[in-house]
Amino acid sequence: MSENGIMSRAKVLTIDTMNPTVKKVEYAVRGPIVQRAVELERELSEGMKKPFAEVIKANIGDAHAMGQQPITFFRQVLALCSYPELLSDSTFPEDAKSRACRILQSCGGNSMGSYSASQGIDSVRQDVARYIERRDGGVACDPDNIYLTTGASDGIVTMLKLLVCGEGTTRTGVMIPIPQYPLYSAALAELGAVQINYFLNEEKCWSLDITELQRAVNEARQYCNPRALCIINPGNPTGQVQSRQCIEDVIRFAAKERLFLMADEVYQDNVYAEGCQFHSFKKVLFEMGPEYAETVELASFHSTSKCYMGECGFRGGYMEIINMDDEVKDQLTKLLSVRLCPPVPGQALMDLVVNPPQPGEPSYGSFIKERTATLSALAEKAKLTEQVLNTVQGISCNPVQGAMYSFPRITIPEKAVKEATEKGQQPDMFYCMKMLEETGICLVPGSGFGQKDGTYHFRMTILPPTDKLKILLNKVKEFHQRFTQQYS
Amino acid sequence: MSENGIMSRAKVLTIDTMNPTVKKVEYAVRGPIVQRAVELERELSEGMKKPFAEVIKANIGDAHAMGQQPITFFRQVLALCSYPELLSDSTFPEDAKSRACRILQSCGGNSMGSYSASQGIDSVRQDVARYIERRDGGVACDPDNIYLTTGASDGIVTMLKLLVCGEGTTRTGVMIPIPQYPLYSAALAELGAVQINYFLNEEKCWSLDITELQRAVNEARQYCNPRALCIINPGNPTGQVQSRQCIEDVIRFAAKERLFLMADEVYQDNVYAEGCQFHSFKKVLFEMGPEYAETVELASFHSTSKCYMGECGFRGGYMEIINMDDEVKDQLTKLLSVRLCPPVPGQALMDLVVNPPQPGEPSYGSFIKERTATLSALAEKAKLTEQVLNTVQGISCNPVQGAMYSFPRITIPEKAVKEATEKGQQPDMFYCMKMLEETGICLVPGSGFGQKDGTYHFRMTILPPTDKLKILLNKVKEFHQRFTQQYS
Repeated sequence: MSENGIMSRAKVLTIDTMNPTVKKVEYAVRGPIVQRAVELERELSEGMKKPFAEVIKANIGDAHAMGQQPITFFRQVLALCSYPELLSDSTFPEDAKSRACRILQSCGGNSMGSYSASQGIDSVRQDVARYIERRDGGVACDPDNIYLTTGASDGIVTMLKLLVCGEGTTRTGVMIPIPQYPLYSAALAELGAVQINYFLNEEKCWSLDITELQRAVNEARQYCNPRALCIINPGNPTGQVQSRQCIEDVIRFAAKERLFLMADEVYQDNVYAEGCQFHSFKKVLFEMGPEYAETVELASFHSTSKCYMGECGFRGGYMEIINMDDEVKDQLTKLLSVRLCPPVPGQALMDLVVNPPQPGEPSYGSFIKERTATLSALAEKAKLTEQVLNTVQGISCNPVQGAMYSFPRITIPEKAVKEATEKGQQPDMFYCMKMLEETGICLVPGSGFGQKDGTYHFRMTILPPTDKLKILLNKVKEFHQRFTQQYS
Repeated sequence: MSENGIMSRAKVLTIDTMNPTVKKVEYAVRGPIVQRAVELERELSEGMKKPFAEVIKANIGDAHAMGQQPITFFRQVLALCSYPELLSDSTFPEDAKSRACRILQSCGGNSMGSYSASQGIDSVRQDVARYIERRDGGVACDPDNIYLTTGASDGIVTMLKLLVCGEGTTRTGVMIPIPQYPLYSAALAELGAVQINYFLNEEKCWSLDITELQRAVNEARQYCNPRALCIINPGNPTGQVQSRQCIEDVIRFAAKERLFLMADEVYQDNVYAEGCQFHSFKKVLFEMGPEYAETVELASFHSTSKCYMGECGFRGGYMEIINMDDEVKDQLTKLLSVRLCPPVPGQALMDLVVNPPQPGEPSYGSFIKERTATLSALAEKAKLTEQVLNTVQGISCNPVQGAMYSFPRITIPEKAVKEATEKGQQPDMFYCMKMLEETGICLVPGSGFGQKDGTYHFRMTILPPTDKLKILLNKVKEFHQRFTQQYS
């Protein structure tokens, strides 16, 4: 008891008495550099003088915020579902109306305001299953294996949650790529699971080596129980697209080492490089024959947030679960029921993504035109980014084969590393923070995703409109040259 | 290693090797009885003969699924935000258009498809703050204390997550009412926190006694570290509305016992009984003077899912955080950033709820008319439910002062209790399951919410349209009489 009555009511919840696993969570994509970017925007709007006129947030794959236009058909259907009185409006195309009716008929009381089943709306799950079958050249998909989610993140965290158990050296370990998308490290920290790093091979275009997987799992078995292997393909932040052979090797490895496979395939429609093609883990698994197809446990994740849609704000997504134990599946459904259901507008949007306008339907032409325009622009920007960055001495980057990011390696002069270390900052954070203050460009330091010791990177989205991207790349170039000169 | 290669690939993830805390989660509102109801619906649709023509799901507060109509203005704005081309459509009222423009201007790239800030859209949080100030007679509200959430559930789980720490007898304990809304027990089980039950007083209209809180916390201190006190007001499943005096007493108790207060106030606009009024914990706290207002830590939760809106599917909600330690607040923001943002359409809807049409605006008249109609109908149905159920011998229920449920006590004959016990079922589960099979009415057994030993209840929503509700109540009456006779 302290000296007076009020003081005795010191806070119940303090940094020292809060959940210690939450404290360990880090999420660089929205970390200190982004907070500073938001501050700078405010300062600019208040008329403060800066060496730049606007802040460009190239830190996050947020397509619409960068000016990408939504697909007209999708938004028409969403408007119809939101306000069904519009169904009698003759300016809406018939295919949009019929899609809206189908979605509304699957909603309680024909309203998106009703809860859906916890696993997601039946008809949407059926459409997802048919989409997967088409994508995978006819490999069967059971709608019972489809779970709609609140973005892909929700599905990933839920799957990790199921997998975590044990204490000490029997604690669940989960293998993740380095560099990784920091949702993984954040979720593992929060769940108190052991993060097992395997390094992608930057020299070979960020490819995945089975020998590296083997090294990582062997070492990990000494201090934890490795139970799952996470793959991000196409890669985030690294942009590589895995070959069919690589996927087959990974599946064989997972089978041999008894690992639950988690395939983050949210960029499945973002493949740009010639000779690269997206292969789903599901398809490859089933092509490997019953020895694998009937035993290897796999969860695959998709989302409405990326690809040509970029509808992040709706938080739509799904996961497909293969070979999951039936009792565990019941537990999964039960666990999901506590959060009632994923947002219904996001479910509706997911339905449209997997069931877009078909040839012969009135919206088909404009849909294809819009989709192609977005994907072509992304392909062009992927190339542009690689080309320009590779002209800068001290920056080298792999081709952006897929996804939405470049993750170039940067040379940071010794003097800058020293200054950063004295400030208690990672050298690439120091670099990115300086770039933000001088140019208004917001990138994420490589240390937020993980990288080999002594190497430095940043992640930059390729999403800004081409003209703006050119300016941005030039500014990066100039900054890097200035920075290098300053610290040489 | 087992006898052959394939067998050696027994499942990685089984009921025995999955997360044990997830196994402990229970959520009766969507439990086995609801799964059976869904099956019955399918059987009916396949033409199977049943003693009823339709399944009536009175198990969940899902207003639109029960035929409640959405507020026209809300849906107009959502349609405009989804498909901004409609802004040039002259059939939409000007106030809907100006609301939509304001929301879109707060979205990156003027699109609901962009991620928002993790804490929620700035302008929406400002509107929420002004709403709270109006509701609480001018008590100040800082938008920085508002966090938009994915329904109220998300906020509640997040707050609990922050609070959990310690092991053994220092493990965090959280006080929850019995009967409770099972999100609380589910979240506590998953987080491995200790559930501390305090019993509401059924004899006094489900009121909350401070002596019972004191008993519960005293006992709990022997085996855990009580750190939070959850209150549901108006009550779910119990329907009571707490008096101002009671709330003041609870706050004083929380201050004395050093408990973080969590006020679930999602039914704040669902108050029907004469003489009852909703008092927010925030308002009462601030009226108690600085000794309390500046020290007691409080989180209050609201949602778009209940009240006159019933927009469950959009998963909109907010929480207001009072007196939270600054460092913890930073941790909260960081934790929320991992899930990127709450669904933007749900945020937009929350904005409309806290900032509906004002007098003088074109939609004001129809908005008030629709809201009043829904709330009057609910008030009427609350009364009707209480009256009819209390005419049945062996059923007795408290007035539904607020929220959306009746939670009557039912007498179950000894013989039925015995038969249930032999089947390994809770007697009220046995009762509800039988009612479902015989009448098609889906209720939730009281055991799913918690109740005093030896007492039995069920929770039933008052949401069906009045005509249907009358039929439903009569069927419940007949079933109860038949059941009683059968087991007497």
